Order: sequence, then C-alpha cells, then structure tokens
Amino acid sequence: MGKNIILKIFEKKLLSGSLQPGNEISLKVNQTLTQDSTGTMVYLQLEAMGIKDIQTDLSVAYVDHNTLQTGFENADDHAFIKSVAAKYGIIYSKPGNGICHQLHLERFAKPGDVLIGSDSHTPTCGGLGMLSIGAGGLDVAVAMAKGYYFLKVPKILNIELKGKLKPWVSAKDVILYILKELTVKGGVGYMIEYSGEGLRELSVTDRATIANMGAELGATTSIFPSDEITRDFLIRQGREKDFIHLTADDDAEYDKKIVVNLEDIFPMAAMPHSPDHVAKVKDIQGIKVDQVAIGSCTNASYTDLMKVAKILKGRKVHEDVSLVISPGSSSILKMLSDHGALGALIDAGARILEAACGPCIGMGQAPKSSAVSLRTFNRNFQGRCGTENAHVYLISPETAAVSAITGYLTDPSSFGDVPLVEIPEKYHVSDHYFVYPKEDRTNTEIIMGPNIKPFPVNQPLGPVLRGKMLLKTGDHVTTDDIMPSHASLLPYRSNIPELSKHCFGTLVKDFHAIARKYNGGFVVGGENYGQGSSREHAALVPLYLGVKAVIAKSFARIHKANLINSGIIPLTFIDKEDYAYFDALDELEIRDIIGALDAGSEISLFNKTKGIAVRLQFEGSRRDADILKAGGYLNYAKQSNIS
Amino acid sequence: MGKNIILKIFEKKLLSGSLQPGNEISLKVNQTLTQDSTGTMVYLQLEAMGIKDIQTDLSVAYVDHNTLQTGFENADDHAFIKSVAAKYGIIYSKPGNGICHQLHLERFAKPGDVLIGSDSHTPTCGGLGMLSIGAGGLDVAVAMAKGYYFLKVPKILNIELKGKLKPWVSAKDVILYILKELTVKGGVGYMIEYSGEGLRELSVTDRATIANMGAELGATTSIFPSDEITRDFLIRQGREKDFIHLTADDDAEYDKKIVVNLEDIFPMAAMPHSPDHVAKVKDIQGIKVDQVAIGSCTNASYTDLMKVAKILKGRKVHEDVSLVISPGSSSILKMLSDHGALGALIDAGARILEAACGPCIGMGQAPKSSAVSLRTFNRNFQGRCGTENAHVYLISPETAAVSAITGYLTDPSSFGDVPLVEIPEKYHVSDHYFVYPKEDRTNTEIIMGPNIKPFPVNQPLGPVLRGKMLLKTGDHVTTDDIMPSHASLLPYRSNIPELSKHCFGTLVKDFHAIARKYNGGFVVGGENYGQGSSREHAALVPLYLGVKAVIAKSFARIHKANLINSGIIPLTFIDKEDYAYFDALDELEIRDIIGALDAGSEISLFNKTKGIAVRLQFEGSRRDADILKAGGYLNYAKQSNIS
Repeated sequence: MGKNIILKIFEKKLLSGSLQPGNEISLKVNQTLTQDSTGTMVYLQLEAMGIKDIQTDLSVAYVDHNTLQTGFENADDHAFIKSVAAKYGIIYSKPGNGICHQLHLERFAKPGDVLIGSDSHTPTCGGLGMLSIGAGGLDVAVAMAKGYYFLKVPKILNIELKGKLKPWVSAKDVILYILKELTVKGGVGYMIEYSGEGLRELSVTDRATIANMGAELGATTSIFPSDEITRDFLIRQGREKDFIHLTADDDAEYDKKIVVNLEDIFPMAAMPHSPDHVAKVKDIQGIKVDQVAIGSCTNASYTDLMKVAKILKGRKVHEDVSLVISPGSSSILKMLSDHGALGALIDAGARILEAACGPCIGMGQAPKSSAVSLRTFNRNFQGRCGTENAHVYLISPETAAVSAITGYLTDPSSFGDVPLVEIPEKYHVSDHYFVYPKEDRTNTEIIMGPNIKPFPVNQPLGPVLRGKMLLKTGDHVTTDDIMPSHASLLPYRSNIPELSKHCFGTLVKDFHAIARKYNGGFVVGGENYGQGSSREHAALVPLYLGVKAVIAKSFARIHKANLINSGIIPLTFIDKEDYAYFDALDELEIRDIIGALDAGSEISLFNKTKGIAVRLQFEGSRRDADILKAGGYLNYAKQSNIS
Repeated sequence: MGKNIILKIFEKKLLSGSLQPGNEISLKVNQTLTQDSTGTMVYLQLEAMGIKDIQTDLSVAYVDHNTLQTGFENADDHAFIKSVAAKYGIIYSKPGNGICHQLHLERFAKPGDVLIGSDSHTPTCGGLGMLSIGAGGLDVAVAMAKGYYFLKVPKILNIELKGKLKPWVSAKDVILYILKELTVKGGVGYMIEYSGEGLRELSVTDRATIANMGAELGATTSIFPSDEITRDFLIRQGREKDFIHLTADDDAEYDKKIVVNLEDIFPMAAMPHSPDHVAKVKDIQGIKVDQVAIGSCTNASYTDLMKVAKILKGRKVHEDVSLVISPGSSSILKMLSDHGALGALIDAGARILEAACGPCIGMGQAPKSSAVSLRTFNRNFQGRCGTENAHVYLISPETAAVSAITGYLTDPSSFGDVPLVEIPEKYHVSDHYFVYPKEDRTNTEIIMGPNIKPFPVNQPLGPVLRGKMLLKTGDHVTTDDIMPSHASLLPYRSNIPELSKHCFGTLVKDFHAIARKYNGGFVVGGENYGQGSSREHAALVPLYLGVKAVIAKSFARIHKANLINSGIIPLTFIDKEDYAYFDALDELEIRDIIGALDAGSEISLFNKTKGIAVRLQFEGSRRDADILKAGGYLNYAKQSNIS
C-alpha cells in the first residue's frame, strides 16, 4: 500500500504511539513559531518550565500583531519576548520585519519537517511541504522545552487538482472555490494533502495561500508535495540545502478524496460574514466599494503585490476608495521598491502600511460605518475588521486591484491583459530585522514590564482535595463567562492577576474576592460547561485563583482539555440529579483522588455541610490522569522525556 | 521708516482696523487648512453657517491624524470631511497622502498670502514666506465662509541669522538652539521674522522646520523672506507662478531683535520633558536608546529622509533599537523609493510607517515602559508619546540616524562624512490622493456617521435672561473640569450630545441631567474660571446644554473668548463678595441684557429665590458684545461682511 506525504512525515518523526486513526501519538518537533499576541503567554509558560535550552532545531519569535503600539503594553511585550529569545536561544524577529507565516516560508520552512506554531494560520508553510500545525500556547511552550507534540492521528483528505487556471484566476480563487464546496466544517478532523497535475500551475507562494486558508476549512493542516517548484523557490531564496524531494506514492491511500478541476474556477469572493459564503465575482459584481485592503499571511507575497502594482501602474485608485497595502515582509517591501513597483502603487494613490498583520486582525484600518470592504485576507467574520456593521468580502489580489480602480466589486477577467510577474532570480534576503541568539547566553536578563506577570504554576496533586464550593453555575456556561475577553481586557493577556479580577464576571460580581477569601476551592457546573472559544485563559485564571476541580454535568471538549493542562480536575456527576445537592460555600472533600485517578475508578465527593456523598467520574486518558497528578501539563512535561 | 515682511503682508491683506500694536484688525484670508482631528468640528461649524461657497482662494481638508483607524469613528470622520469638501469646493486630501503642513508647503503655500489652519503647527508654511497662523476651529470655519480672520496686531521679533552652519548641524539644531535661548514663553505675543546672511544656509524645507517649531516658542507665527531659494523650490515643485519676491526693507524696524550666529550651534537635543530643555548632544551623549522615531511636520522632508538614508545605507539599526520612519508625504515616499533610498532604509532594518503624523501625536509607536526615545518631532511633553514614564529627546534627523546605528544618543559630528543630498531637479508631484471639487456641486450629500452630530447653533440673544443657577464652582476650575478630555472621550469630539453627558464630570455627577431638567440656566464660578487648555468644547458643550451666562470672580483669557464665540455671556462680579449670595437652583434673572451690552453699562442680576440684586459687568469689546447679541461667532459672522 502506497504512502501519502503526511504518513511519511509521521513515520519519520514519530516518538510515541502507533499510527492508527484516532490514536494519540507524539511527534518530534523541528521548529516552532510564535507571534506576539499569543507569544507573551507562551514564553511565560516556557519560563515557568525552568529549562536551559530549547530542544527544537530552530524556534522563532515573531512580532507582527500588536505593531500599532497605542500603549506601552505592546512595546513591553516585544521587549519581554526579545529578552526570553536571547536567554533560550530563540531567533527574535523585530516588528517591521513582516508577518510570521510569510517570513517563516521565506527563511526557515523545510520540507518534511514539523513546525508547531501558536497561530491558527501556521499551516501556511504546508505550501512548502512542511507539516505545520497551529496549536495552543502550552503545546508550543512544551514543544520548545521538550521537542515533542502530542496529537491524535487524523484522517487524511486528498484534494487532487486537475487542469489549468483561467486567465485572472489565482490561488485565492482556488481555496475560495474549495471553501464553497467543503464549507468551514469540511476539513474538521482531517489533514489535507494536495496532489495532481494542477500543482504545476501553482508556485510555492500560491500553495502557501491555499494551505493558509485550509484553516478556514477547519482542517488540522494542509500540505503540498515538495517538488521541483519547491526546489526552485528554495534556490531563489538562497537555501537549496533545505530541499528534500517529498511526494506521495503513486498508489497512496487516503481516507477521503476529492477532485478539483482548476478550469471550473472563476474569480471568487467570500461574501459577508463567512469564508465559505462564496460566489463567483461575476455574479455579484457592481457593489460600490469603500475600502480595499491587500496583504495578510494569505496574500502578501512578492508575486501577489507585483501583480497588484502591474494592474495599478499608470492608473488611479478611485477617489471613493481607500486602498491599503501591507506587504508580507520587509524583503518584499524592499523588492517592490527596487523594482519600481512601490513607486507605481504610491503614484496610483495607495496607502502603504507597515509589513505586519495590520487590518487582517482588526489592528487598524477599521472601515467606515456600513462600509463595503474588499480584502485579500482569510476571515470575514462580522466585526473582525473593527466595524460591526461593515460588509467584508474576501477576494484575490487581482480582483482587489481592479476593484480599487473601478470603485466597484469587479470581475478582473474583463480588465484586459493579465499581469505577468516573473519570480525574481534571487529573492532579497536581509537579516537586519532578525536578532540571532548569541553564543554566550549566560548574561541574559528577562525584561518584564509592569503589565507582564509570571505564569501561575500549579503544585502536584495532593492526596485529599478539600475546600469551599465557590460558585454554582447553570448549563452552557461559556469561556466568555468564565474569562471575559472584551477589548478593554485584551491588554491584560499577559497579566493573569489583573484578569482574575474579572473571572466569571458575567455571572457574579465577586468571584475573585470569594476565591481569595477561601484560598480557592470548587466550581459546580451544569451541562456543556466551558463551551465557546478555545481560550486557555479560561483555565489559567481559575488556576491562579486556586480552583482545584470543576464538577459538572458535562464539559465542552476543548475547555476540558485546557482544564487538564492547567491541572484543574474536570469531574462529572454519575447521577446528574446530584447537582441539586450543592449550594454556595458548602464545604467539600474528595479523599484519595490520586488512587481514584490511577485506578480509573469512581470518585466519592463528600459534601460536609450537607452530610451527603455523591458519585463522580473522571473521563480522560491515562496520560490525562498523569498530567493532573503532576499539577498540569507544564509540570508533567518537565518530568517526562520522549525520544 | 522701512517695513518688515509681516507689516507688508498686513498692509496688503488688511480688511478692517488700524495697524497699531494691540489693535484688533481683520485680514483677508487666502487659504485655509484643516486636519482631521480638529477638522470634523470645523466642518460641522461650516455646515451650521449655511453658506453655499467658500470665500478663500483655496481651502484644503487634510487627513493625517487619525490614520490608524482602530474604530469606525475615524473612517466616518474622513467620509464626513470628504463629503463637506465636495459640497463647498474644498480640496480633500485622502489619508496616506501625508502630513498637512508638509503637503501644503509642497503644493499650495504662496509667499505673501495668508493661511489660517486648525492646527498649532500651521506656521510651517512661514518657511516659504506665507503668513501662516494656527487658529481655533470657529476662526477657520469663519475664514472659509467669510474670507476674513481677526487678530490683535502683534509685536514683531526679528531673528537675524549670521555665519555658517558647522558640518552635521542642521535646521533642527538651529531652532533647538533658539528654544534654549528664548524658552517656550519667549515668543508669546510676537510674530517672528527671520533675516540675515545665514538664510543662504537654509533651504525652504529647512526654513519650514524652523518656522514649524516657532510654535514651541509660543509665537503666533514665524516667517522667512521669499527669496531666490524660495523661487528655486517653487520651480522644482513645478509652480514658479506662485513665486513673489518678498523681503524686509533694509531699514525695517522691529519691536525686538536678536542675532543668532550659526557657527555657535552644535547638534542639540531637547531633553525630557520640554522643547526648551536643550543641551548640546556632545554634553549628554551615551544614553542607551530604545526607540528612534523620524518624521513629523518638523522633519520629514525629502532632504531630511535622504540624509537619513545616506547615513543608514549599508549599515544596520542597532538590535536594541526600534527605528520608525514616517515620511512627510506620499511624494517623498515615492521619491525615496525611486532613488533607492527606501531600499537602503529597509535593508538597514527600519520600520516604514504610513506618510502621516503617526507617533508625533501619540498615534501609535508608544515606546516601552521607561524607554528612551529619540524623536525628530516638535514636542516632548511627558506622556505625549503614549508612555507616561518614557524619556523623549527631540533631535535632528542626523543625530537620530547615527544614534539608531550606535544604539546610544550620539553626536553625529564624530561619525564621518557628512551626508550630502542634492535637492531633486523636479520634485515628484502626484494628484492621486487629492480629491478636487467637481464643477457641478449640486448633488453633494453630507455623510454623517452615527458618531457625528450637528454643531449646536445658538439663538440671537433675547431681552431677558432667566433661569436656574445650575452649578456653583470654586476657584481655578479648568477646562478639563468643564469638559474632560481623556482617551475614552476623544472619539466623541464630533459628538457634542455624547460629550455633554460628561460636562463638569470632575465636579458633579449629574450636571447634564440638571441642565436638561431646567432647560439650561446659569453657572456661577470663582477666580480664574476656565483656566487650562484652549479647548473650544468647554464652551460648546455648555452651549449645547443651554448655559446662557457664566458669572465668575474672574475668567481665564482664552476660555472667556471661547464663551463669547459660543454666545455664552461671561460676566464678572463688581463686588466679589456677592459670590456668597448664590446657591444651587436659585432662580436668576437679568433684564435688558441687550441694552446693558450696548451701553457697556453695569448689569443687574436679580436672585429671585433670595430676593437680592447683585451688580455685574461685561468686560469685552464692542465686537464681543455684538457677537454675544448675535448668539455667537457663527451667527455674527453670518450677518457681517468685511471686504
């Protein structure tokens, strides 16, 4: 039986477990990346692990999210990340260097290797044949400290590309077409592997565009073969040494397979407010446009922006349109400048923003009220652009540039000659925004601004759990209830003590004070406890406040995993009716919790106030139990080695 | 007796009054400029005047302040300003085009003409021999609607420049040297006129740098002669037709005169936290630097940035320094790109920001906690950079560039060859960010987003003033007390109804509700009422809430003028002891207020609740009384014509 690319990488990188679908395995991690928005917490976690050196081949700490710096907090975060990078031997990428995924593709991604990143668009480097997975902060910290990453063996979806692209149709249209076919849930539980003769149509940066937006399909990652096009890209980036040939066997097997005929694809647009709400541009064109935004980790490559420059050269941005362009990297900006393309963009009336994520993450350039905004980005959820009632369409750079000129959403096919862009013989490579670790790292000092507080490290589990019931909630409590995350709290992502003042803030006023008064304790919940976003802080903040266990009728999957990673025990009622036997500030006790976790047996919770014992269970794996006993994933990882 | 430049312009532009020092005169206004932060209110005021066409030769509405757009409010403001511009025949400059003063110098400034602008650095165009004055929003609105501007005849200070600049010393060092000599109060009550052989050392953009920071001296404006250097600049900008020769007569007289020998000047730095806290760089060098910011209306010309590029070419920004560069205009950015200079900046590791005010006004790039930030800007007040405990030094572009490389505040004189920059034979000129008014302006619609509310127009004064005393304050109430202006209220500058909810917020909780309940009324104050900033909103918001008169022991000068402009009558106690006879919600009445204003006589205020009459006076000019009778400056200006 032939092997697919993903299986080949799994076999090469497997550290533990067996490769049966659904099994938990661990892989050797070659590289990690972080961005600054998630990175500060990742590095607080890394600091808490007390290691000396990282175990990856290479780790990079990018600053690309909070680059507007409207308060000291952002620059303090940058300084903290830079200091941690210097201490542990991590490469630091200064703000202004560009977007993490674009830079990583240009400079570091290696076919056949494994990359774990604390950003959901980490799969971008799949365009170069690297197995690239977005993960939670703790996973990335552990990957750096210990060199491994745990995941369940996914199903593999093969997308075979056939035929040739029409003129004016590009990679963005391909992934929008696939999103229309598969929807935003179509990739859930899968890794996606691309194949077929249609690959010849796609450069590495085109492939990166498609792999990038695989995240919108819900896929764990997407990957392309490493072929002659890949080799050619690496040669032009000055790093042919990183090339390996990596393709699926001719008779490779997959769990699922679909065929996409590239000839069927027209210029596409994802309409408000979902990336899979896709139509052909020609069917909806003519909408008056207020803003066009070009850039992001999806569509800010040299080729993308050169095409835009060719379209705009000698023309003028429509007077009613604000066209903003944020290049993917400083090298791209330099090449645009050297080739006269930047001059053409400026001359046409484009606004040139810093090489960073910028408007894609709502970091500036919020359009006006009820605006129509065309964006070459990857997500168009309502309000993400910063303006709640704006209408955001996701489109290709070609559609963006042509529409910026006409002032209306316009199918570029009717615009005339296709802009042809030569891939540069040599990409510009500058190291001046990178800070490389020094040989001697003995005199490094961690710089923590007043808004950055250490990670709350848990203690190993003791034999008896005892304390007050601090809060009893109803059903369907969300992570937004547990740890609100509105704009005014965002600057406190690296400040758990400050955040803790708002814990359970939508439900009660003073959880923080009660938890403090009784030195932590228990939370009792209803059905589907912890639904909603995957926010780790909804577990870290209760940990900081001394919550020892959450007892609920049922848990949402991701929050339960986050509780375990924090060392807070998620327990469920065997008889849900027992939920009734609890009131605020009841004194609770669980004896021999360690024995019960080891045995996987029923757990008896004694309500000392009521004089009643109820039966609970822990629903988790052997490894989950070990993590809880260690007092969370950080402590667990500190003790364990897989190699 | 010979005439100085300013007198020559006054004589040419005089509409009313006589040119005796201290007299009130009105001048014909040729041009106006606004920026977006103050402009929205200016255009709300213009709208309220109900005119059809503007009366200036040329008015330009720039967008350069709120260009980060972190919420819909900014883009809504831009759209509003653009729509007003289209209606009244004003040129609109889109965001991304650059900084108003730099653009105005490049494109529109004319020697010998008068420019009024709603920004304190409007005097920048004095570098080109234009009489350029920063003014309040109402003054700018009236200048557009009626073509005139009222001011008191100032004293004239002549600064004679002698000798030659040392290598590595430039215009910024000259104005810092003058600030050290004169202090931030040295120019108060004066207009400054430059002369002398040293002018040969200074290009038009150099002169603009010096005129720009004349604002920091407290001067009403600064002006340079229009000479062959001026003609040369205009030729290279493609507008020689705008040139006139304008210099002072050889025997011109001045109220005061100082001589500055350029040879005495070294690279200078204004230390924290005042522009006049100036030292020689060589005396304080060696301070470790965290951030270097180059740009602003002071130092972002083509020549400034080319010098920076020459210094940085082939070198590297120190790894501990964040170097941010915001060009003064899109044309400059394009020229930097075309000449390879932008490539050199990027290659060295500089962050390239949009052509806008940016970090100079605290719009992004807040440095880290306790940072040292070197800035080529004009103000280093504590906290202005966005970080309260940062240490900001104002320096020249040369000092900035060299220090960015070394990582320490460094006197550039020791750095090697002086960067020589040729002024381009032709400056790049692009019209693609300007929206020019259409011939047919009949179908223009004003676009007001949900956060923009009309200007509160007052009614002409009636014969009797009657109402409740809404509030009694102590001494030294500030405009911050009357109308707080912290960050969370800034987005509401164009929304008086929303702002009004916070009126007198530092003194009482519910002024807004009380004023509403009693349909407006009176405020009684102590000494120095309305001290602090010149904020017009501290008068406009009480106007909106129906305040008819403020009765105080004494008034701060600018707030009193703002009250008059709003149509709120500022009255003072003849016997300050009478202040005691008032309590909250007393019913007050003034009969025949118009007669008393006309006669300039004592005013009798009857406290109906107490049954006591007290004596008041109005201390203002004939014209002030007329403005009050009309119901404020807008109404007054609507009725009056001077030409």
